[in-house]
Amino acid sequence: MGFREHLQDVVRSVDGAVACSLMGMDGIEVDTHLTDELGLDLRALLIEFSTLFRSAKDAAGVHEAGAVTELTIQTERVLTVARLVSSEYFMVAALRPDGNFGKARYMLRITAPKLAAEL
Amino acid sequence: MGFREHLQDVVRSVDGAVACSLMGMDGIEVDTHLTDELGLDLRALLIEFSTLFRSAKDAAGVHEAGAVTELTIQTERVLTVARLVSSEYFMVAALRPDGNFGKARYMLRITAPKLAAEL
Repeated sequence: MGFREHLQDVVRSVDGAVACSLMGMDGIEVDTHLTDELGLDLRALLIEFSTLFRSAKDAAGVHEAGAVTELTIQTERVLTVARLVSSEYFMVAALRPDGNFGKARYMLRITAPKLAAEL
Repeated sequence: MGFREHLQDVVRSVDGAVACSLMGMDGIEVDTHLTDELGLDLRALLIEFSTLFRSAKDAAGVHEAGAVTELTIQTERVLTVARLVSSEYFMVAALRPDGNFGKARYMLRITAPKLAAEL
């Protein structure tokens, strides 16, 4: 499977998931599978939230807390779950607020190594 | 119960929890119950991570995604779960990486309104 198929697989497997992206730590999107923007500019929001992944990585680095492996942000309108893929890349899924959070975490956990193997 | 008792209650109720704080959106700590720093400067890390809560709030605001109700950051050495208490305050719990994440989310969800009622 290529990147796109793995991203589609996450969206398909998680109730309430509407998007899954592979992104660089620099906030540049490598690939995205998107089925619904939830009435938001979801792509822009994911890019904005990706700066948080970088900030968390920097803060954890300064305080010797180790690599940031996962970051989740729940807002009233969207739930995002991001997972470290490699030192340079992470993946992020967006769900409706009532989406299956546990399944999203699980799917990212098993998909991240598959993406890493293809980078 | 006062703030401190609620924070203690979270730490006591969640396997692997070592700290719980009530913090202002400005990053200033209102009260903290801390039983172990996990070999880190955990207090400083929580303050640093609180800037992320603010950044997420700002990003969600710009993109009309609604209020940020929860933010979690998992690193190799510590798991932090933060929850909105009011527009000006949030609470955050720190756990060992293998701590009970689901229970932490649950305890913050039920404790946040109790803290809000006392603010």
